Amino acid sequence: MNRHRTVRPADARAHLDQLTKPPGSLGRLEDLAAQIAVLQDTLKPAIQAPVALVFAADHGVADIGVSAFPKAVTAQMVLNFLAGGAAISVLARANDFALRIVDAGVDADFAAHPLLIDAKLGRGTRNYVDGPAMTGGEYATALERAAQIVADCADAGCNTLLLGEMGIGNTASSALLMHGLTGIDLATCVGRGTGLDDAGLARKAEILRRALARRPLPATAAELLTEYGGYEIAMLTGAILAGARAGLLVLVDGFTVTAAAAAALAIEPAIADALVYTHCSAERGHAALLAHLGARPVLDLGMRLGEGSGAAVALPLVRAAVALFAGMATFQSAGVSGKS
Amino acid sequence: MNRHRTVRPADARAHLDQLTKPPGSLGRLEDLAAQIAVLQDTLKPAIQAPVALVFAADHGVADIGVSAFPKAVTAQMVLNFLAGGAAISVLARANDFALRIVDAGVDADFAAHPLLIDAKLGRGTRNYVDGPAMTGGEYATALERAAQIVADCADAGCNTLLLGEMGIGNTASSALLMHGLTGIDLATCVGRGTGLDDAGLARKAEILRRALARRPLPATAAELLTEYGGYEIAMLTGAILAGARAGLLVLVDGFTVTAAAAAALAIEPAIADALVYTHCSAERGHAALLAHLGARPVLDLGMRLGEGSGAAVALPLVRAAVALFAGMATFQSAGVSGKS
Repeated sequence: MNRHRTVRPADARAHLDQLTKPPGSLGRLEDLAAQIAVLQDTLKPAIQAPVALVFAADHGVADIGVSAFPKAVTAQMVLNFLAGGAAISVLARANDFALRIVDAGVDADFAAHPLLIDAKLGRGTRNYVDGPAMTGGEYATALERAAQIVADCADAGCNTLLLGEMGIGNTASSALLMHGLTGIDLATCVGRGTGLDDAGLARKAEILRRALARRPLPATAAELLTEYGGYEIAMLTGAILAGARAGLLVLVDGFTVTAAAAAALAIEPAIADALVYTHCSAERGHAALLAHLGARPVLDLGMRLGEGSGAAVALPLVRAAVALFAGMATFQSAGVSGKS
Repeated sequence: MNRHRTVRPADARAHLDQLTKPPGSLGRLEDLAAQIAVLQDTLKPAIQAPVALVFAADHGVADIGVSAFPKAVTAQMVLNFLAGGAAISVLARANDFALRIVDAGVDADFAAHPLLIDAKLGRGTRNYVDGPAMTGGEYATALERAAQIVADCADAGCNTLLLGEMGIGNTASSALLMHGLTGIDLATCVGRGTGLDDAGLARKAEILRRALARRPLPATAAELLTEYGGYEIAMLTGAILAGARAGLLVLVDGFTVTAAAAAALAIEPAIADALVYTHCSAERGHAALLAHLGARPVLDLGMRLGEGSGAAVALPLVRAAVALFAGMATFQSAGVSGKS
């Protein structure tokens, strides 16, 4: 971003090299701490009131079979998030962050709930094999609503976002987005999602080829999201843009959130400094997408759940990096001899 | 271990597959949780009162130059641990575990301190270029004292140990131990430690070749530890054996702790089920040693600090794995549809 900075990367590195450890010996934790110190423009960085935003939506294409799970699971999992039984719910308690579920466009009606944010854009996108998934107006509204949600988090004292998603069929949408943004061949972008077998994977790829054959590949990220996106992916793109623009640290989860990050970076490359890629998922396209972005994920645990679960598991490492940066003694203060 | 079990690996897997997530989608966290459920013999595993034991000692060989830092740093860092300024001190506060520093044989006298356990075997080992590093009696005492410390932790309610070390020169000792235990060529085992340059690395390797040339390679782990060990490495070996035998979970840190684990496994292979290899360090020999042991480290962050810092950073992931296993809803309880 373009704000005036007092803490530059070299200042953060100089600070790290004064701490009582061999230079560089905290590895990636030093990189993370330096990134966050520069982002927060302070030598006393801190992770404050982190919030996980899990954007949920349904996908018209799921009606014709791109997932190992039925479409109804999107709404069922939203209820599971709210009831506290999902992985991200358990992780929120274990790792001490707030959890908010954003209904970006689930094909169900939910009763009001303290953890639920109603931002419903429709009851699922249209099937992009037949036509655009959403209208340009819906896309614009998705970005606006996401920006408002992020602004509300920041107003409440949050300086760190964990972004996740839930939507049966959304790795299919992410694969199209990745293909359109990067030019990487579709076969590399399409994976098993929640657990397709070989036949299911072949069917998913064939459906996506039909979707691509319908019209020439769109040129811009906005066009790709409108044509092939999910409502949750459009809102994720908006949340990433808004969070980074506001100076928040944005913890990117797995394949679908990274696809949204790729879209956000295509729209505004300067946001890169706010993003941490928390893990490399087992979903086929993720490693290639991360490599395309030049991203080094913090974790590589073979996770492929979504929900923001990778970001949630990585949060303590981010907190540790920041705590070490801000809390360790220096060689001078501790009376420890330096390198011979 | 040989205790009667009611929770077998298949039971732990069956439990995991009932939870509201695609089967296997939590990746390595599922493996960790299953390992710990079986170790603790319960479907409600928990990490209780974890303690980091950092074993510190000096090495006679450090007098002739195998480290980028002077020998005095061992004692200086012990004081830094006690004062709360070291990386492991910060991590203990950030990640909520108890920290105890064990003086296994530092070349300094320390005043009593609540975090300090006096188990001093001497004021550093003898230089193993000239003769055995320690006596057989010292080795036996190291294992006994370590076992007593672990028993005290268990008696206080701890079921999880984080093991770390501090000792200028100890990656040299670890390299000899690795070479002797695995037969892997010395050049692969010897690394830069706290940050040797090329000339320093060559000098370290030459010193270790002289130590090896002095006598035929010892045959057993006990002989290797006596001949080339550090006091802290012998105590680590004893702590790993005692912890695993008592059914505690043992979080193995970096190169030196893994070398001690390799010695412990050579002494008693059945302890393997209690060990978690928390990270792959940037120290040259570590990846090869882990591969030799068939170990899959949880993290790969380019860390090379020691002190138990890798284990400390991994602890929240272990806690998360256990929390997910014990705390997630099942498909049935949450009313979520299973795979089509």
